[in-house]
Amino acid sequence: MGLLSVELSGQLLARFGDRFSISQALREQHGRGESHHTPAIPDAVIFAQSTDDVADAVRLCAAAGVPVIAFGAGTSLEGHLTAVRGGVSIDLSQMSQIIRVSAEDLDCTVQAGVTREQLNAHLRDQGLFFPIDPGANASIGGMTATRASGTNAVRYGTMRENVLSMTVVLPTGQVIRTGGRARKSSAGYDLTRLFVGSEGTLGIITEVTLRLQGVPETISAALCSFGSVEQAVSAAIAVVQLAIPVARMELMDRGLIAAANAYSGLSLKIEDTLAFEFHGSPASVREQVELVADIVKDHGGRDFEWANAPEERNRLWKARHNAFYAVVSQRQNAKGWSSDVCVPVSELSGCILKTRALLQDCSVPAAILGHVGDGNYHVVFAVDPDNEAELAEVAAINKKMVEHAISVGGTSTGEHGVGTGKIGYLRQEHGNAVDLMALLKHAIDPKGIMNPGKILPV
Amino acid sequence: MGLLSVELSGQLLARFGDRFSISQALREQHGRGESHHTPAIPDAVIFAQSTDDVADAVRLCAAAGVPVIAFGAGTSLEGHLTAVRGGVSIDLSQMSQIIRVSAEDLDCTVQAGVTREQLNAHLRDQGLFFPIDPGANASIGGMTATRASGTNAVRYGTMRENVLSMTVVLPTGQVIRTGGRARKSSAGYDLTRLFVGSEGTLGIITEVTLRLQGVPETISAALCSFGSVEQAVSAAIAVVQLAIPVARMELMDRGLIAAANAYSGLSLKIEDTLAFEFHGSPASVREQVELVADIVKDHGGRDFEWANAPEERNRLWKARHNAFYAVVSQRQNAKGWSSDVCVPVSELSGCILKTRALLQDCSVPAAILGHVGDGNYHVVFAVDPDNEAELAEVAAINKKMVEHAISVGGTSTGEHGVGTGKIGYLRQEHGNAVDLMALLKHAIDPKGIMNPGKILPV
Repeated sequence: MGLLSVELSGQLLARFGDRFSISQALREQHGRGESHHTPAIPDAVIFAQSTDDVADAVRLCAAAGVPVIAFGAGTSLEGHLTAVRGGVSIDLSQMSQIIRVSAEDLDCTVQAGVTREQLNAHLRDQGLFFPIDPGANASIGGMTATRASGTNAVRYGTMRENVLSMTVVLPTGQVIRTGGRARKSSAGYDLTRLFVGSEGTLGIITEVTLRLQGVPETISAALCSFGSVEQAVSAAIAVVQLAIPVARMELMDRGLIAAANAYSGLSLKIEDTLAFEFHGSPASVREQVELVADIVKDHGGRDFEWANAPEERNRLWKARHNAFYAVVSQRQNAKGWSSDVCVPVSELSGCILKTRALLQDCSVPAAILGHVGDGNYHVVFAVDPDNEAELAEVAAINKKMVEHAISVGGTSTGEHGVGTGKIGYLRQEHGNAVDLMALLKHAIDPKGIMNPGKILPV
Repeated sequence: MGLLSVELSGQLLARFGDRFSISQALREQHGRGESHHTPAIPDAVIFAQSTDDVADAVRLCAAAGVPVIAFGAGTSLEGHLTAVRGGVSIDLSQMSQIIRVSAEDLDCTVQAGVTREQLNAHLRDQGLFFPIDPGANASIGGMTATRASGTNAVRYGTMRENVLSMTVVLPTGQVIRTGGRARKSSAGYDLTRLFVGSEGTLGIITEVTLRLQGVPETISAALCSFGSVEQAVSAAIAVVQLAIPVARMELMDRGLIAAANAYSGLSLKIEDTLAFEFHGSPASVREQVELVADIVKDHGGRDFEWANAPEERNRLWKARHNAFYAVVSQRQNAKGWSSDVCVPVSELSGCILKTRALLQDCSVPAAILGHVGDGNYHVVFAVDPDNEAELAEVAAINKKMVEHAISVGGTSTGEHGVGTGKIGYLRQEHGNAVDLMALLKHAIDPKGIMNPGKILPV
């Protein structure tokens, strides 16, 4: 850790001019994501505008053995952006160009700093949309690097399934393309999937080619409240097991609904709730709705409350997306700690029950929410980041939840990534396969300059 | 190349007894797949029955620096099985145990030697099926290793999307699990996708956990003939662009239909044809059929001919699956050369037109067929493997087809894999990303004993 050498600073200044900064405020802003993780401030920030910029920055830093950390929209939840060994934060937010959209092929290529909302605003007139929706207005590069997913993944998959290829700057400064535009290929190792989810530890993603979807003819959304979380989850599992192609199926427990009402000015019934969205032709949506209505009734759900007008739908999903902030806002000066596990659907009910039991005596505000169609759920805690006892209490709950998820064949993180927050669980989850991960890391980044201390210990 | 050392032979014999063989006939059978590639015979064959068997075989061979080549059902089309540097063929066909099926989670775990037909026969009573269907009755291990797909991929994806995790024996003999059973995970590098499509060059896959599907309530199949391949392809592209969720959409040109009639005893109209299959609820299938019927009519297609009775459907798809053998059987003592490219759908029509022009003066029987919904098509040639001039002629046609596919953003192989057959195109397709592939190969297999000479040059 420590300041950059005079030589490297001079080189970066010469190359990037006023897009190179050592301002304290900028550095502080780049040393953290949105969650409770302790910030670690980089020594400098560079604003890249092109793949060449990134390649030059990486090359100069690599020559000096200085770490580089890619920064997109700053919405990380697991400490991905912390400069734990100092170094240079490469901010990609000015790489916000939508390079190409093909309505014919349902694909597009964007620079890594494009945000998902920007992309969807751009696509709207062409009747297209990009379905992956983690809630936050994250950058496409960041979503790719963390293998993000979110509310629509139950129908449309995650970044793993929706990235066709990308441009990556390797630790040498070399630039590669990981693939072409074909929908499928058997031509060599799957470099695309190697970089999806690599969290900036193997290279920096500068451009991404994505699959797109046509906007469905009919979109319909509904809320259904239940007497208990268990009932809601069992209904959700039945929907999955019947393979009804719902586009969204989100669990919000009553604590979350209360927080969302307060934060987003809503008046939803304060009950454990499933929120659905249905996409398709009118006939297909009708059929899905009928099937799901029967299922929720069988599991003790109340009648659907519809939110079909686009503005109603938007309010509903905005409230869902703001769940993190809603929970955090329940307490002054709190930070959010959002944990994230994903389990086989048959284990979901048991896991959530166990998690609820753990939360019973928790001293800080907490709520459960989840993309239950995927077996993925979160607990959001509102913590005082200066209160060690409280952090230890939440860490202990988190540990039990994660370890139980792993013990039933699940994963320590369904979509937030490892960052620094889940490093401690990687070996428990993957056993000696972690050694292979470390081997790959060392082969590609022998100097260990790419976002060190994330995924794998430094 | 050459025989095994006395020492290694002794060790393998001691460990495997009569499951270790140096019989000439067995070795010959293990030195080739189903296509025209010149066989290269291994020095010995081992029949593995467990992951431990594979691990011990790999460990002993690795210590002696002797190559190992995994062998499943022997249906490779690109020379994956040739022992180009000698070594030991590890036959996994006796690893044919279906370890676990979960109807609740729609997943299963099987040993690598289980074939897709065996798996589907096992699943049928539970109302489940495994959708990936490359035609041949390949092993699940082989399908995983080549990133196979086939007729159903347009709806259900490829092995890339349907393998949840696997057990792999690394070149050290170490055994790893690449992941758990969660539908999605952001926990570390995607080792699963690294091994999917790695063609035995990074490790040997011994067990695979797969996603399954429920058997659709309604299945309906139909043929539609067109006045030209162009019309058929343009109809297929329109179906894709409207995102109609057809389960299968296969192009068979008139040459192929004639060959299939002769080979499979059918009396299909000898015209350029699209074969469709529709899966879903009765209402959804009806809707898909109506939409597709309108589209094919707009593109000059004749009326659908239905093949709805299960036995009719089976005959149709069996004929499609036997296309390779049908073309080859047009000529005595011929071998099949099946080339395979995949392009963005908007480029498909242009590519197929160019390929047809190349075939105009071809001196050997040839037919075009394809999974056109994915932009993936094949040409099957019936070649005399001893006729150098003929092989050169087909190689030249193949080269033009592949290079054109790459030039429009496509790939040199959509599903057959690289093997030895497509090695020469890898750099053209991936540029300097091939260096990264070689770096990974060297890091994981520094002695180069895992299926050497496949994907990357020795």
